[in-house]
Amino acid sequence: MKAVLKKEPAPGAILADVPVPRPGPSEVLVKVKATSICGTDHHIYIWNDWAKNRIKPPQIMGHEFAGEIVEIGPGVTSAKVGDYVSAETHVVCGHCVQCMLGEKHVCQNTRILGVDRDGAFAEYVVVPEENVWHNDPRIPPAIASIQEPLGNAIHTVLAGETRGKTMAIFGCGPIGLMAIGVAKSCGASFVAAIDINDYRLDIAKKMKADMVINSKSQDPVEALLEHTHGVGVDAVLEMSGASLVFGQMFKVVRAGGRVTLLGLPAKPVAVNFSDDVVMRGITIQGITGRRVWETWLIGRELLASGSLDLTPVVTHHLDLADYAKGMDLMTSGNCGKVILYPEGVSH
Amino acid sequence: MKAVLKKEPAPGAILADVPVPRPGPSEVLVKVKATSICGTDHHIYIWNDWAKNRIKPPQIMGHEFAGEIVEIGPGVTSAKVGDYVSAETHVVCGHCVQCMLGEKHVCQNTRILGVDRDGAFAEYVVVPEENVWHNDPRIPPAIASIQEPLGNAIHTVLAGETRGKTMAIFGCGPIGLMAIGVAKSCGASFVAAIDINDYRLDIAKKMKADMVINSKSQDPVEALLEHTHGVGVDAVLEMSGASLVFGQMFKVVRAGGRVTLLGLPAKPVAVNFSDDVVMRGITIQGITGRRVWETWLIGRELLASGSLDLTPVVTHHLDLADYAKGMDLMTSGNCGKVILYPEGVSH
Amino acid sequence: MKAVLKKEPAPGAILADVPVPRPGPSEVLVKVKATSICGTDHHIYIWNDWAKNRIKPPQIMGHEFAGEIVEIGPGVTSAKVGDYVSAETHVVCGHCVQCMLGEKHVCQNTRILGVDRDGAFAEYVVVPEENVWHNDPRIPPAIASIQEPLGNAIHTVLAGETRGKTMAIFGCGPIGLMAIGVAKSCGASFVAAIDINDYRLDIAKKMKADMVINSKSQDPVEALLEHTHGVGVDAVLEMSGASLVFGQMFKVVRAGGRVTLLGLPAKPVAVNFSDDVVMRGITIQGITGRRVWETWLIGRELLASGSLDLTPVVTHHLDLADYAKGMDLMTSGNCGKVILYPEGVSH
Amino acid sequence: MKAVLKKEPAPGAILADVPVPRPGPSEVLVKVKATSICGTDHHIYIWNDWAKNRIKPPQIMGHEFAGEIVEIGPGVTSAKVGDYVSAETHVVCGHCVQCMLGEKHVCQNTRILGVDRDGAFAEYVVVPEENVWHNDPRIPPAIASIQEPLGNAIHTVLAGETRGKTMAIFGCGPIGLMAIGVAKSCGASFVAAIDINDYRLDIAKKMKADMVINSKSQDPVEALLEHTHGVGVDAVLEMSGASLVFGQMFKVVRAGGRVTLLGLPAKPVAVNFSDDVVMRGITIQGITGRRVWETWLIGRELLASGSLDLTPVVTHHLDLADYAKGMDLMTSGNCGKVILYPEGVSH
Repeated sequence: MKAVLKKEPAPGAILADVPVPRPGPSEVLVKVKATSICGTDHHIYIWNDWAKNRIKPPQIMGHEFAGEIVEIGPGVTSAKVGDYVSAETHVVCGHCVQCMLGEKHVCQNTRILGVDRDGAFAEYVVVPEENVWHNDPRIPPAIASIQEPLGNAIHTVLAGETRGKTMAIFGCGPIGLMAIGVAKSCGASFVAAIDINDYRLDIAKKMKADMVINSKSQDPVEALLEHTHGVGVDAVLEMSGASLVFGQMFKVVRAGGRVTLLGLPAKPVAVNFSDDVVMRGITIQGITGRRVWETWLIGRELLASGSLDLTPVVTHHLDLADYAKGMDLMTSGNCGKVILYPEGVSH
Repeated sequence: MKAVLKKEPAPGAILADVPVPRPGPSEVLVKVKATSICGTDHHIYIWNDWAKNRIKPPQIMGHEFAGEIVEIGPGVTSAKVGDYVSAETHVVCGHCVQCMLGEKHVCQNTRILGVDRDGAFAEYVVVPEENVWHNDPRIPPAIASIQEPLGNAIHTVLAGETRGKTMAIFGCGPIGLMAIGVAKSCGASFVAAIDINDYRLDIAKKMKADMVINSKSQDPVEALLEHTHGVGVDAVLEMSGASLVFGQMFKVVRAGGRVTLLGLPAKPVAVNFSDDVVMRGITIQGITGRRVWETWLIGRELLASGSLDLTPVVTHHLDLADYAKGMDLMTSGNCGKVILYPEGVSH
Repeated sequence: MKAVLKKEPAPGAILADVPVPRPGPSEVLVKVKATSICGTDHHIYIWNDWAKNRIKPPQIMGHEFAGEIVEIGPGVTSAKVGDYVSAETHVVCGHCVQCMLGEKHVCQNTRILGVDRDGAFAEYVVVPEENVWHNDPRIPPAIASIQEPLGNAIHTVLAGETRGKTMAIFGCGPIGLMAIGVAKSCGASFVAAIDINDYRLDIAKKMKADMVINSKSQDPVEALLEHTHGVGVDAVLEMSGASLVFGQMFKVVRAGGRVTLLGLPAKPVAVNFSDDVVMRGITIQGITGRRVWETWLIGRELLASGSLDLTPVVTHHLDLADYAKGMDLMTSGNCGKVILYPEGVSH
Repeated sequence: MKAVLKKEPAPGAILADVPVPRPGPSEVLVKVKATSICGTDHHIYIWNDWAKNRIKPPQIMGHEFAGEIVEIGPGVTSAKVGDYVSAETHVVCGHCVQCMLGEKHVCQNTRILGVDRDGAFAEYVVVPEENVWHNDPRIPPAIASIQEPLGNAIHTVLAGETRGKTMAIFGCGPIGLMAIGVAKSCGASFVAAIDINDYRLDIAKKMKADMVINSKSQDPVEALLEHTHGVGVDAVLEMSGASLVFGQMFKVVRAGGRVTLLGLPAKPVAVNFSDDVVMRGITIQGITGRRVWETWLIGRELLASGSLDLTPVVTHHLDLADYAKGMDLMTSGNCGKVILYPEGVSH
């Protein structure tokens, strides 16, 4: 089969012919209909420091996908050939205290699809039965393939109250953009979107942000304090990873509010905890992964019911073979989600 | 001034000329722009058993309103002449354990506007400063006057999770209808509305119910179990007060779900607690009043932002002098909210 | 091996010689050190209506136990020979919406050890790997064997806030008695215990109840309202299943409080929902099973740390062969937990 | 009357003869039985940078107290002469969004007793009626006077789950010491106390800490990871304000756990948010003040019921005139709470 293979510990990847994998015990084999590029895939492609330390080539890239089960391994009981599925990409141990408490997203022994084992930028992918997610047939493959990052957005937005609340979302990458839609469909009365890229801010408008701020030309602190009469917003979602935002976000969150962090700053950031966190009663939440399966259920419900429309976020559809073009789009920043089709876009 | 007065302990009410009241210490005088008829007002008007035991005529009726402050009493600091306001109708003691815990809606010493003191079906009404609610200027008086019952709807809907959840609302009186809108604007993926009145079910559709069931012609248990593949919905909101619904609601709520009660059954109802509540892990919540001021803030945000549109619920606009016509509409059941205007509809 | 066998669909049980079972795939074989009698076992023994409808003899009885793993089946990875274990007795499907949401205690497809498959009143018992619970070595077998019903107590007590709260526990069977200890160790400032059996009320005192009420000689409503100056307690735990209590519990819970139900009334009970639940803002919670594994973790922590001492609840230690004597004690009501030892008490 | 007066903007304070204050409208006059020294009082006494910017001498110092109402101002309805009271020291506006949401501890317009108005280091003090707290008569004045800082401890400890949880408390000043007792009485299964002062660690043992660590001689990270088998504790309470602790606390909290901050670091602290907060799903909570009145109710219940014993924390009893000796004890660090008696210790 065709697969995008990280063959060597160096930038780039190749389109390789590899054997179709076989499902082991309690695993399933999925024929991939659509697979989407994540920022993590881009990190592996450009071979940044994180990738150098974590990835062991050769390995098939990719982890976001939707497809159809074509073979099941021994002992599989909850999935069958023909099922239309996606997958939770964190393969967890089930036995650490976090797993026992239902906090699988912080399992002590997580292994990740496309990072620690072969991934989905291929015609076929093997996933453990317990990671299989059954898609609603009303959700098309391109949208179904981005349920995994949508889950990050949902986990972040719904980490606190949204209903009748005001929010500021820093960073309009795909997850930030999806977070706008999630917040609005879950009762947020005001959502401001902040970024430095007008292409992405245009998508933010389509996702129904109530205010968009290009922080290169407008001070988000000033704009948000003016809008909230100096009080600040109920919640800040930090989805950019930019250190600069740490100097803004505590100024725009109201006393008693929350700051929810999904973005990953490259370096330690200094915070004035006394004035900005303790004295103002702020809660800071670190968010990783998705709540399994709470987050997935919410995403499926919002998508299948039509409450949430992610089509503005999906900006590019490419043949799998054009993966390099997709990676270049990611480098440029002028894209939302890029979907790759192993059978070809026009299929 | 003109006022709808419950003059005697008997059915009916009169339009009387009474002196304009004066605000006492920590009270304000409001010129009423719009006032709406509540089911409680109707109970007082028809003089049912509850009214006989509670109301001490003569008393001015009514408690839902919006208007402008025209005079303030001594010691008032948080409101001023010219403010556009409505009011929380529960006047609480502030010192019982419930008030100390922020559960003012179950204060042990509540007194109610229009029930225990003169109300708002009049050109002017006096309310305590601490009950004053500042309206958003984007909300017109008719809608602002129904924020109080909207608060009941919000309190009921938001008593549990809504985001990505499925719900069944029994009873499409005005509060049930508003609850549909609140649920949909707060992320409910599926809302079924059940009633026996097609007039009200038509409004339910306008409020964006995903399914409407006239339980005279269709079995809601069958319809909802079919829709949910036998599982049941995440939440049932009981807003009808009909005993019959108690025989249906435990069958349509999923194991682990919630049943939230706002309706008031006329008599005790027998429940199979073992099979229907304990063994299925059901939570039953009794809801009264509004969380002060959490509920009001949410309502104002949802209305002012446009996330929630209540115009389909407001079906009739009448001069205050036509209050009897409004009460007849309430008796017929073929209405949503009926708004009365002391200055006249056409003003 | 020796086993207490429900051989026929009739009252009683026999001590039989049966083959030692073998663990299948993903199962383990446990040598039982101590096993305790549950009310459910007693129902099966006396062959009440519930038992007639649910149990399919022949079947080995019992489900509460502690012991040592002596053999593991194929594919077991998280347990090994020599492990000191107990077991969650609900074998769940893992795939229904409740399981996906972490609400395994209300799984749609639960099968129960000793009810739907062979149990633990025997020298050996087979349990699924995923139901195995690793005991803390500081907890002796008799106490470890009652962690399962302790879990019911914890689930009930911790279904709401306890810290600085006042509580009334109706029913001082073993789970009610354990609930007293859990409540006191988790910050309850006042716990009243109500029963009609002085033997059990004496144990309630040892569990540190602040007030014990024999409701045959003292009115619990009067006593509790007097103690709380007419306000009522923050939480009522109904652990008796007596219909009579439903007429008392809404009078002793404060407005805004919770009523948590674990007891199973034999018949439907009529409740005045308007006055007792809706107008007073009461929450009623049905509790079944244990939160897997949250509840177990809390129990292990409380027991192993010494915060919770259950020794007063364990009143009788018998050889397994004396199971009939244990059942007679259960019938009399003059016991707490009765522990059976397959190897003999004196071992 | 005698009062400890901050007369000039310089270190120190004097014992002055000043007029007995009179209660204004909605205020009460309290005869002080016992008043305790807070770290804030010490800051004002030594005249540190914070004090220089905030305090406007002349002003009577002190804010923690217990006493008896001897006079009430006009309009007071909820308190009367003879009542045994203490006071919430934050005088809030009641009208900002935080006050409306029940988050009075982060009111935008807070004024503080003994900081922004005359305080309680005196024979008499005036407090607003709405700040009056009625003490339980079972609680003696010395203990009643420290309910206010106890409230900070309760707010911090109960900001998350404690029942069956493991905790590490950094900083054994009086609030840290009280937090140990609160945590243990509210179900924490393991509480480690960390400080650099053996005098205070000895009190920590008396408060029933399960482990005490002098971090000058023992590495708390190593000790806590060893105790928790490398997993970390469920919650860290940071009550020292030491920047050094920020380098330790993220290493000892388990993934998914909480870090609750009450201490005030003198300067900004750099945090590796990516590795230590986001990827591990950590929640950081800033805590200030007390939840009014939730926190106070819990404290009163725990103290009056005997669940919580604070006597080990109260180390010194002095005549009010010996305030300077009390301040010197605070400087030395070799004290818990220091209580001052306007009528003399021996009274």
